[in-house]
Amino acid sequence: MKWESRYAERARGMKASEIRELLKLTQQPDIISFAGGLPSPDSFPTIDIAEVTTHVMLTAAEEALQYGTTEGYHRLREYCVYRSKREGIDASIDNVVIVSGSQQGIDVTSKILLNKDDQVIVEAPSYLGGLGAMKAYQPQFIPVKMDGDGLIIDELEETLKKMEKPPKLIYTVPTFQNPAGVTLTEKRRKRLIDLAHDYDFVIMEDNPYGELRYSGDPVRAIKAFDDEGRVIYLSTFSKIFSPGMRLAWVIGDEPYIQKFIIAKQGTDLCTNSFVQRILYEYCRRDLIDGHITKIIGIYRKKRDIMLEALEEYFPEGCSWTKPDGGLFLWARVPEYINTKNMIAEAIKQRVAYVQGAAFFVDGSGTNTMRLCFSYASNEKIREGIKRLGRVIKKEIEAH
Amino acid sequence: MKWESRYAERARGMKASEIRELLKLTQQPDIISFAGGLPSPDSFPTIDIAEVTTHVMLTAAEEALQYGTTEGYHRLREYCVYRSKREGIDASIDNVVIVSGSQQGIDVTSKILLNKDDQVIVEAPSYLGGLGAMKAYQPQFIPVKMDGDGLIIDELEETLKKMEKPPKLIYTVPTFQNPAGVTLTEKRRKRLIDLAHDYDFVIMEDNPYGELRYSGDPVRAIKAFDDEGRVIYLSTFSKIFSPGMRLAWVIGDEPYIQKFIIAKQGTDLCTNSFVQRILYEYCRRDLIDGHITKIIGIYRKKRDIMLEALEEYFPEGCSWTKPDGGLFLWARVPEYINTKNMIAEAIKQRVAYVQGAAFFVDGSGTNTMRLCFSYASNEKIREGIKRLGRVIKKEIEAH
Repeated sequence: MKWESRYAERARGMKASEIRELLKLTQQPDIISFAGGLPSPDSFPTIDIAEVTTHVMLTAAEEALQYGTTEGYHRLREYCVYRSKREGIDASIDNVVIVSGSQQGIDVTSKILLNKDDQVIVEAPSYLGGLGAMKAYQPQFIPVKMDGDGLIIDELEETLKKMEKPPKLIYTVPTFQNPAGVTLTEKRRKRLIDLAHDYDFVIMEDNPYGELRYSGDPVRAIKAFDDEGRVIYLSTFSKIFSPGMRLAWVIGDEPYIQKFIIAKQGTDLCTNSFVQRILYEYCRRDLIDGHITKIIGIYRKKRDIMLEALEEYFPEGCSWTKPDGGLFLWARVPEYINTKNMIAEAIKQRVAYVQGAAFFVDGSGTNTMRLCFSYASNEKIREGIKRLGRVIKKEIEAH
Repeated sequence: MKWESRYAERARGMKASEIRELLKLTQQPDIISFAGGLPSPDSFPTIDIAEVTTHVMLTAAEEALQYGTTEGYHRLREYCVYRSKREGIDASIDNVVIVSGSQQGIDVTSKILLNKDDQVIVEAPSYLGGLGAMKAYQPQFIPVKMDGDGLIIDELEETLKKMEKPPKLIYTVPTFQNPAGVTLTEKRRKRLIDLAHDYDFVIMEDNPYGELRYSGDPVRAIKAFDDEGRVIYLSTFSKIFSPGMRLAWVIGDEPYIQKFIIAKQGTDLCTNSFVQRILYEYCRRDLIDGHITKIIGIYRKKRDIMLEALEEYFPEGCSWTKPDGGLFLWARVPEYINTKNMIAEAIKQRVAYVQGAAFFVDGSGTNTMRLCFSYASNEKIREGIKRLGRVIKKEIEAH
């Protein structure tokens, strides 16, 4: 069968990303990979999950194994309301939908809001999965630069002034950003809300890492400053419980959430009832906060080891962010090095990263890279950074 | 916030279905509901699931709780290849993707194939969830009638002849159809394949009930007669294991499946790894066939009880299908009765069904109804049909 001519217009441009191919390569066991964005396997509460599952099967199997409502298990929705208060968000259960991972939150939001050629402001660099979900609806991406304090709001304002009409939405990962590791300051969050009001656009706030803070003071969610229902807030249990369980939640204005539920119903009828019950029981037993404390301990150590190793092994002319949380840091090498071309040599030396340019919609960032510090073991982090430092030195010497 | 003006064109028409509202009503505990399409809660293998989960947590937790590949757990994909052979399908692992329920299979297929105003042939009546998933991509639906042997292929051929260009695809539930309960004969399946070849369209074959046969001889899948890769085949573990687990699979031509994987990645990154491992271990232990035998026993009995009760309690002028499998039968009342208007009285009598017109894209079928026999207990089936017979008699007398 010839398929190409049958595809819908939106599907013709869908291609396997280079990153996907890269990530396959890095699964070879002797490669030290800083490429993926995976939680540490040490961080999973396996025995508790087995126990909780048995309890759910003995007490609530009829509901856990049956179709559920599209909006999600009501007790878990209530729990998400409670949890979001810590981010400064004041929501009710009618503002909450449980989704099959934040990716679904981004997909359904895009499905509801984006016409072809609608303009969407994204961070430069931005989260690849978010870009991928939105791309299927064929928007135009307008990148706005970031610095150590997150999205540069002055640049955003300049961009908005120049636009013929306001963007449909802005997509942002404001806390411990993927890939840059930086956090938007509260002052900037307030200014972002003001701009959204003045220019009348929607903010999609994606907050997968907010609870993984290893240093510095907490900041409230952008949603916490939203008194118009303008912010669609996404958070997830992937990084604080298990990504394999595919459980996340969306908070939004009630009419928006009503529409969201209808659109989600079309995509998967309902989120997995079984894992919703397991997660709720895990939270009801008050296990999750202790678990997060444990993960934070593991990841803080890994971050510190990577930062120390970078100091020790990366040559002069390189710099990197020092994230207060999350899974990633962002490194720069001298301008003349193209980190995409350097990957082949890195793989030869059995170490991997993601080239920074992959995260820019305009192909910039050719001398940057994303390093994930959460996945590799402590020993491998040191060794991997040592190898990577060697690869960079070789590039510098060859220049 | 005013949302209506912000929605994408595709989302403006998305409305909560009447059925959704009806199903909420029918959750009142004293209502005997034949409305939903739910498996019987007696049919869930709860203890086995608890045991299998503990095993997975002790032996494969790192993988089960981590992100997985978008195409799904490779052993489960292999198992789906093996299982599909029983339907006469000759596939390899590269033809298979695991999805988060068949609904996702329909959504992603629509996303890949449907431009706005593309023509899609659907059965009249057709599965509501399928229509809902496709509708988001704004196709035009062309209904083709069914009889006791499924889709009337002569009518399909007439329709195709009259069309200006061939349809993009046909969506069909050929075995124990939802809602009509009828099965497309093998002879018609072959003719459908021939027409698809001659007119060059794609067949989306949705087969959630195929393994739930209570009488009659098995028929092979439409996909079994497909030597061009023209059929996109969907099947699911929802009716033979658990709908709450949201696990189904898609089989298609390899280039199509490659595109499918990319599109699915945009919608949810990957299917739940945890439940994929649990289901695989359940299948590996050879528990599923015994379980299906048990379900078939339960449902055959329920079907027979409903058929007997219909004979006994439904007044003259009514007729109904006698399905060889699945969850549904389809009843007709005298032409002058509008089953949508009759629902209020049925609810008063504490019994519920879905009005047949809901399953037609052209508003026909006003004197039909769908009755689900799998969910209510055996006693309640008799009592519910008795009540419903009374409601119909009252309508006839008032005529």
